[in-house]
Amino acid sequence: MAIPVQDLVQANARYAQAFDQGDLAMPPAKKLAVLTCMDARVEPLAFLGLRLGDTHVIRNAGGRATPDAVRSLAISQRLLGTDAVLVIHHADCGMLTFSNDDIRARIKDESGQEAATAAAGVDFLPFSDLAASVRLDVRTLRESPLIPESIPIYGFIYDVHTGKLAAVE
Amino acid sequence: MAIPVQDLVQANARYAQAFDQGDLAMPPAKKLAVLTCMDARVEPLAFLGLRLGDTHVIRNAGGRATPDAVRSLAISQRLLGTDAVLVIHHADCGMLTFSNDDIRARIKDESGQEAATAAAGVDFLPFSDLAASVRLDVRTLRESPLIPESIPIYGFIYDVHTGKLAAVE
Repeated sequence: MAIPVQDLVQANARYAQAFDQGDLAMPPAKKLAVLTCMDARVEPLAFLGLRLGDTHVIRNAGGRATPDAVRSLAISQRLLGTDAVLVIHHADCGMLTFSNDDIRARIKDESGQEAATAAAGVDFLPFSDLAASVRLDVRTLRESPLIPESIPIYGFIYDVHTGKLAAVE
Repeated sequence: MAIPVQDLVQANARYAQAFDQGDLAMPPAKKLAVLTCMDARVEPLAFLGLRLGDTHVIRNAGGRATPDAVRSLAISQRLLGTDAVLVIHHADCGMLTFSNDDIRARIKDESGQEAATAAAGVDFLPFSDLAASVRLDVRTLRESPLIPESIPIYGFIYDVHTGKLAAVE
C-alpha cells in the first residue's frame, strides 16, 4: 500500500518550523556536481561530508551518464558555475540484477501490449560490472562536447554496506 | 577552482568509520519514489522527514519528467516495488532564469562550434511557471504506458527559503 502522502506533508510542516537555511544562494557553494544512483541507501551529501547548498545532485537508475544527465550537467556548469563532477555508482545496485529482456517481460506481464511496445523502445541501462560502468560513464561525459574539457570528472564506487567510497581509475 | 577531491575522500573516511546502516535492504522501505531538482538547496530526505533506505530519489535539472526519469521510475516500480511518486519542483529554480537560446549562446561563446552544434539538438527544458511545470510533469508520468495507472503521482512545490512544501492540484 502506498505511503499516506499526508504523513509526508505533516513531517514537512515540522521540518519547516525549525528551518533556518533560507538564505543559501542558488549556485552550489562547493562548485560541485554529483551524478549518482536513485538507490534509497545512497545519500551523497552525508557520505561526502557536504551540507545543504554545497552541491548539485543528479540521480537516476544506476547513476548513468544519460543525455538527461548531460543536459543537467551543462546547466550546472554553464549557468551555475560548477567546475568538477563525481560519478558514483554503488555496490549491490539493482542495475546488476536484471537485463532489458527481464524488465520488458515483467512490464508486458503486468501491463499488457501497449506498455510492452513502449518498453521495447527503452534501453533500461543495466550493467554487469560496476567498475566498467563507472569508467564508461566517466568516458561518456568526458567525450561530450557540452562539458568543458577543463572540468575534472572523477569516478567512484560507494559501498552501501560499509559507507566507504573507492576511486575507480 | 575545483574542490580538492581528496577533501571529499577524507570526509568519507570519517563517515565510514561511524557508519552503522549497512544492513538496509535494496527495495525502499517506504515504497516511495521522489522526482526532484538537482538544486543544492533541495534535500528531499530531510524536508520529507525520511531516513536512509526509505525512498528512491531521482534528480535532474528542474525535476523534469524526462524519458530518463521514466526509465528510472519503471525500474523503481517494476523491480523494486515502489508504489507512489512525488514530483517536486521548487521556488527560485535556475530553470526559471534562462531560455534554450540563452544557454545555447553561452555554450557557443565558451566552447565553440562543435559544442554549439551539440547544444542545438538539446532541449534544456527551462520553464517560466512553476505550478504549470509540475502539472505538466505529473501529466507526462500519468500518461506514460510504462507507469501503472494504480500508482498515485503527487505534485508539489518546495520553497527553498522557508523549507515548506505546497501541494499543486
